[in-house]
Amino acid sequence: MKQVECVPNFSAGRDVRVVEAICDCFRRTETVQLLNSSCDPDHNRMVVTAIGAPEAMAQAILQAVGVAIQSIDLNTHKGTHPRLGAADVIPFIPLQDMHMEEAVELSKRVAAQLAETYQLPVYLYEYAATAAHRRNLADVRRGEFENLAQKMQDPAWFPDYGPHTPHPTAGASIVGARPFLIAWNVNLKSEDLSLAQAIAKKIRQSNGGLPFCKALGMRLDAKNMVQVSMNLTNFSVTSMLTVFEAIRSEASAANVEIAGSELIGMLPLEAVVQSFAQALQLESFSSQRILETHQRV
Amino acid sequence: MKQVECVPNFSAGRDVRVVEAICDCFRRTETVQLLNSSCDPDHNRMVVTAIGAPEAMAQAILQAVGVAIQSIDLNTHKGTHPRLGAADVIPFIPLQDMHMEEAVELSKRVAAQLAETYQLPVYLYEYAATAAHRRNLADVRRGEFENLAQKMQDPAWFPDYGPHTPHPTAGASIVGARPFLIAWNVNLKSEDLSLAQAIAKKIRQSNGGLPFCKALGMRLDAKNMVQVSMNLTNFSVTSMLTVFEAIRSEASAANVEIAGSELIGMLPLEAVVQSFAQALQLESFSSQRILETHQRV
Repeated sequence: MKQVECVPNFSAGRDVRVVEAICDCFRRTETVQLLNSSCDPDHNRMVVTAIGAPEAMAQAILQAVGVAIQSIDLNTHKGTHPRLGAADVIPFIPLQDMHMEEAVELSKRVAAQLAETYQLPVYLYEYAATAAHRRNLADVRRGEFENLAQKMQDPAWFPDYGPHTPHPTAGASIVGARPFLIAWNVNLKSEDLSLAQAIAKKIRQSNGGLPFCKALGMRLDAKNMVQVSMNLTNFSVTSMLTVFEAIRSEASAANVEIAGSELIGMLPLEAVVQSFAQALQLESFSSQRILETHQRV
Repeated sequence: MKQVECVPNFSAGRDVRVVEAICDCFRRTETVQLLNSSCDPDHNRMVVTAIGAPEAMAQAILQAVGVAIQSIDLNTHKGTHPRLGAADVIPFIPLQDMHMEEAVELSKRVAAQLAETYQLPVYLYEYAATAAHRRNLADVRRGEFENLAQKMQDPAWFPDYGPHTPHPTAGASIVGARPFLIAWNVNLKSEDLSLAQAIAKKIRQSNGGLPFCKALGMRLDAKNMVQVSMNLTNFSVTSMLTVFEAIRSEASAANVEIAGSELIGMLPLEAVVQSFAQALQLESFSSQRILETHQRV
């Protein structure tokens, strides 16, 4: 059975009514499962993780974006996480019986539908991108909502669908297809933002750090802490434990302890197995040694 | 569907033909899956892990014990692991749709059948034990094969089934039912047996160490190393990582590093999840955050 994961990010992390109304769009759609939703009041952002049949997922997304557009006004939205719109990023991830090409097609259908239904400008990104410079999320989002009207005047940044002016309150959305990634934050027992930023810079690939690791230092005002916020795009090469040990080592050099870590959304069993085996120096371990892998219903 | 796990231990860890002949008994039984077999030439012992339907498992065991009795002579058997017989220990572990009482009944039927078929004395142990002093495996096995004839004269140690004299070459078997346990060994970069024994004594519950941890120090001649060999009988209370850190700390105090660790047989997903989350200080993580938990076939 074809299964797609969708991990939409909405610019709402403080108002429980908005968060619940968005979650309900996934809960009430048959053959879609809402697996997780994480809100961060400092980021003022929510991340939904849902899996399900592709067409049903498209319908749930259409509804959820409608709720976000009705409820969120980017003109008054504040948060530490960069964002371009109310329904900021909508990635489709092919899971079971589905190829990347199918996820790309699905993302384009959804993008076109969102643009038409809500008069919303939509950019395609990652595997769905229509030009090399539009592939990277950070590049598409650069300037954020506040500079979007100006950015859209540049033909290099005309939207792929919808009007060439931002939605007055919902900005624009970024829709695409990508492989699975692990979104994961490590919190430090410190309020020193520059430390979190220095650690992020040290470990991320773009500054010569760990392969397939993206990292940003952020402040968590609600917790009086700072955080290294990460995406791991190939955990087979760089495991979560390798990243954790690198952060612990850098933090320790500054006499700072790790407070804890938090996963955003889901992860594949292989990522768990890998760091588990690494932590225990387990020889020739695989998911085949896990009982549940063999149990029949 | 009812499913039972069986983890029989046979006193054969050097002769590949014997090992394979025993494994074949499980491979060729329908509705039984051979999940794993581990041999240790130093222990001169093999551990089979199989799951399947209870009656099919009983048939596979009957055949495998027959092969062991034909192939193994305890009079010439040498190995570092204590043993009472050729088919030394045969525990049944209730998994899916099965209660401990059913596993106890199954173990008694198998014990009676082994005794009758092979004129083999059989002791019941753990949840199947017929007296409190016969519950603990180490007590039943104490004296090993070499002192078995004498032990059997004592009415306290009359077998539960079969003749009151050891099988001339196969000794006796110990059959029972028990909850799941993790069999796991940590190898040290050292040839100092007394160090492995001291660490085992320090960490095991019976000497005031970690709850639900049984441990022995052993020599691994084949690897020029020593090993802490363990059973963890309640990993929810004492995790693998907690045990690993304790061993690492004790070894480190003696300037010895851990060479690696090896799992014997299988473990439940929860044991993996627990040590994974502990290693990464992950907050509010559970197996529900693993994608495969939700995938539909």
